[in-house]
Amino acid sequence: MTDENDSTNKTDPSGGADWTRREMLAVLAGTASAALAGTAHAAEPSSAHKQEPPADPTRTPGTGPSARGERSPFETTERIAAYGVISGTPLHQLHGTLTPADLHFERHHAGIPNIDPSKHEFMIHGLVERPIKLSMSDLLRFPAVSRIAFLECSGNLRIDAGPETTPQFLCGLTSQSEWTGVALSTLLREVGLRPNAKWLLAEGSDAAVLSRSIPIEKAMDDAIIAYAQNGEALRPGQGYPLRLFLPGWEGNTNVKWLRRIEVSDRPFMTREETSKYSEPIKGGHIRSFSFTMDARSVITTPTYPEHIERGWHDIRGIAWSGRGRIAKVEVSVDGGRRWENARLLGPVLPKAHTRFSLPWRWGGGTAELSSRATDETGYVQPTRRALIDARGVGSIPYHLNPIVSWLVETDGRMLYKAEPWG
Amino acid sequence: MTDENDSTNKTDPSGGADWTRREMLAVLAGTASAALAGTAHAAEPSSAHKQEPPADPTRTPGTGPSARGERSPFETTERIAAYGVISGTPLHQLHGTLTPADLHFERHHAGIPNIDPSKHEFMIHGLVERPIKLSMSDLLRFPAVSRIAFLECSGNLRIDAGPETTPQFLCGLTSQSEWTGVALSTLLREVGLRPNAKWLLAEGSDAAVLSRSIPIEKAMDDAIIAYAQNGEALRPGQGYPLRLFLPGWEGNTNVKWLRRIEVSDRPFMTREETSKYSEPIKGGHIRSFSFTMDARSVITTPTYPEHIERGWHDIRGIAWSGRGRIAKVEVSVDGGRRWENARLLGPVLPKAHTRFSLPWRWGGGTAELSSRATDETGYVQPTRRALIDARGVGSIPYHLNPIVSWLVETDGRMLYKAEPWG
Repeated sequence: MTDENDSTNKTDPSGGADWTRREMLAVLAGTASAALAGTAHAAEPSSAHKQEPPADPTRTPGTGPSARGERSPFETTERIAAYGVISGTPLHQLHGTLTPADLHFERHHAGIPNIDPSKHEFMIHGLVERPIKLSMSDLLRFPAVSRIAFLECSGNLRIDAGPETTPQFLCGLTSQSEWTGVALSTLLREVGLRPNAKWLLAEGSDAAVLSRSIPIEKAMDDAIIAYAQNGEALRPGQGYPLRLFLPGWEGNTNVKWLRRIEVSDRPFMTREETSKYSEPIKGGHIRSFSFTMDARSVITTPTYPEHIERGWHDIRGIAWSGRGRIAKVEVSVDGGRRWENARLLGPVLPKAHTRFSLPWRWGGGTAELSSRATDETGYVQPTRRALIDARGVGSIPYHLNPIVSWLVETDGRMLYKAEPWG
Repeated sequence: MTDENDSTNKTDPSGGADWTRREMLAVLAGTASAALAGTAHAAEPSSAHKQEPPADPTRTPGTGPSARGERSPFETTERIAAYGVISGTPLHQLHGTLTPADLHFERHHAGIPNIDPSKHEFMIHGLVERPIKLSMSDLLRFPAVSRIAFLECSGNLRIDAGPETTPQFLCGLTSQSEWTGVALSTLLREVGLRPNAKWLLAEGSDAAVLSRSIPIEKAMDDAIIAYAQNGEALRPGQGYPLRLFLPGWEGNTNVKWLRRIEVSDRPFMTREETSKYSEPIKGGHIRSFSFTMDARSVITTPTYPEHIERGWHDIRGIAWSGRGRIAKVEVSVDGGRRWENARLLGPVLPKAHTRFSLPWRWGGGTAELSSRATDETGYVQPTRRALIDARGVGSIPYHLNPIVSWLVETDGRMLYKAEPWG
C-alpha cells in the first residue's frame, strides 16, 4: 500500500509527465482566464489530458477552482458555418430545451459589430410625446422581464439537403434562451404614444443598419428590449449590448445591436422587408410581413450520422410554435402511416422549444422516423407536398416548416430522407 | 460621399490598423476555436477591439460566422475562488434565473478529475434483482428527463462578511441550470429493488471518492442521473460525464463524477456525512441528514459595490426553496419595519430560482434594503437572530438562510449590513 503512487505510474507510463502538466494547469486555473489564454492550446487546455487521462481518476488529485468552468476537451460541439453569414446550432448534439449562448445560431447581414456598451445609446422618437435617449445603465434601472423562448430564422430549412444531413445542417437556425430586458411596452408608456402611432421602425447599428417595421400591437404585447441571454450579457453575435426580442416572430425582426426605434403611422418598407423577407407565392403574389413562425418539429436523435443498434431507443426531438404552446407531437416510425403521441416534457412554455420523446424498439428492419407538431391554436405541421401545393415550387424558402423524416437502414445507418423540393 | 472611408480614418486615427486586425480576426473566426486560441490574448480576442471600437460601427464591416460565439471583451464576469475548493457565482452581475454553465458555482473535495467519457462506467448493485453496469451511450438510450432547478451548497453563507461584500461573496454558492438525464426511478425499476431496499450510496470517481447516503424515497421521487446541463454535456467542474441531481437538496448530495450506486437497507455513514455535513446544534445535539435547502432570498441589485443615483431603481433579486415553489417575496427599504410584496417573474417553477423585483424611488436618505421569502409550504425565511437562537452560536455554518440587508449611504454608496454571528 505504500507503493500506491509508484504502481499508478507503472500502470500508466505517461503518468509522471501528465502530472506535471496537470499541476501547471491547476495553478493557471486559479488565475484569470486571460492568463490561461497565454499558454499554447488554451482553447483545448486539456489536449494533453485528453490523450492521457489517468487509468483511475481516484488516484490523482484533480484541478482546483477557476474563474470560468470550461468544457471537457472530449466535448467538441460546435456551430456549423454556411454562406459566410450563418452559424447553425448543433441540434442533434444538444439535450433539453436550452441552447448554450455560444452555440446559439447567428445570421448577420454585415457581420458582428464591435460596440463599447458604455457608449451605446438607444433612442425612441417619432410619433411620441417625449422622445428619449437611454444609456445601457439607464435601461438597467427599468423593471426587468425574462422569458424563455425560441428564436428562429425564417430561412431555416435546407431544401437542397442530401441523405448525409444532420438536424444541425437541415434546420439549425433555431435556438432557445432565457432573454432578459425591459418590456418595450414599459418604454412606450414612458414616451407616450400619439393616437396615430401604428408601426415602429427598429434599427440596428451594424454595417447593414438592418431595420424592420413592427406593428405597434406586437410592441405593446410581448416585445422585450433585451440586454441579457441565459443569465449574462448578450453575446456580440446576439446583438450585444442590446437587441429587440419578439417572441415567436421570425429572426430578422429581432433587430440586433439596436440603437433606435422610430414610431410612425405606417410601415417603413425598408430594404430588408422588401428585397428580402417577402415571399413570392403561388399566382404571382408576394407575401409581406409574414412575421409569425408556424408550428414545427424535428427529431434530433436518432438521426444522421448515428449508427444504431437493435433494441430500445428514445426517439427525441424538439417542437415549437410562434403562436403559443405546443399541444401535441406525434411520431411515426413507418413513414407516416401510423402516428403515436409522444410524451411532452414539461414545463411546456408558450413560443418555446418543447422536448418530446417516444421509446421505440428497433428490430433490424428499415424504418422511417417522422414527427408532426400541433400547437394550441389547432395548427398542424404540414407535409412537404401540402406546402409546395400551397406556395408553389418557385417560392423563396422562407417559412417552410414541413414534416421531415429520417431513414433507418438495415445495417443501423441513419440517413435524412432527402427529396427534391418540387 | 466618395471620401467616406477616408473621412472615417481621419476621425479615427487608428482606423487603418484596427481594420487589419479585425480582418485577421474575421478570418480566424471562421475556423475552429482551437485555432483562435493559438493567437496571443485569445481569451480576450478583442483586446485590440476593446481599446479601439470604431466611432461609428455602421461604417465598418463586422466579423463573420464562428464555431462558438464568445463573450464581448467588455464583459469580464467571472467566478470568485475561495479556500482553494470553491468557485462562487457572480449573482450580482447576472440577470433572469439561469446561470451560464461556466459561471455555475463549484465545490470539490479533491479537485476536478479528468475523465474520458468513453471509458466511464456507472454501476447499480446491492439490494437489487439485476445489477447493471452502464456506459454513457447506454444511458443516452434511456428516456430522458429535464428540469430547471437550483443547486446550492449547504455552506452558502459567509458569516464573516464585512461591509464591502458582494452577493457573490456572501452567498454565490447557488446557481441554476436546466439539468437533463435519466430519472433514477427508471433505472431502479430496471434493476428491481429488493423489499428491504431503504437507502442507497452514491459514489463519485474523484480523488475524494465522495459518497453520500440517499433515502430510497428521494431516489424514486425526482432524482436524475444527469449528463447534461443547459443543453450540453456537463462541464468537468459539474461532474462530467455524470452526476446525481437531487432537486432542492444540499449540493454535496448531488454526487459528481458518479460511478456507482449501491442499494442497502440502512445509511452508509460515510466520511462526508459524519465528519462533514452534520451540524452541531443547540444543547449538544448533532443534526444529520439535513438534506433539504430551506427557503431563501437575496437582493442582487442594487448592492455593493454599486453607487446609486437618486430616482427610480428596480430592486431585484432571487428567491428559492428546496421544498417547492416560492409563494411570496417581500421587500423592505426601512430595515424591516414595513414590508411590501415584490413582483414574482414567471414561470415560478418548483425548487428553482425565482426572480423578484420591486420599483423603488431613492430620495437621497439612508435606507436598508432586505428581502424575505415564503415558500408554498408556508415556511418564512428567518431573521439572523431567530436562526442563532434556534441553532446556537457555535453551530457549523450549514443551512444558514437568514434575511440579509444592504445599506444605502447618503452619498449613494451601497454596503452589506455586516453583523457579528452571535
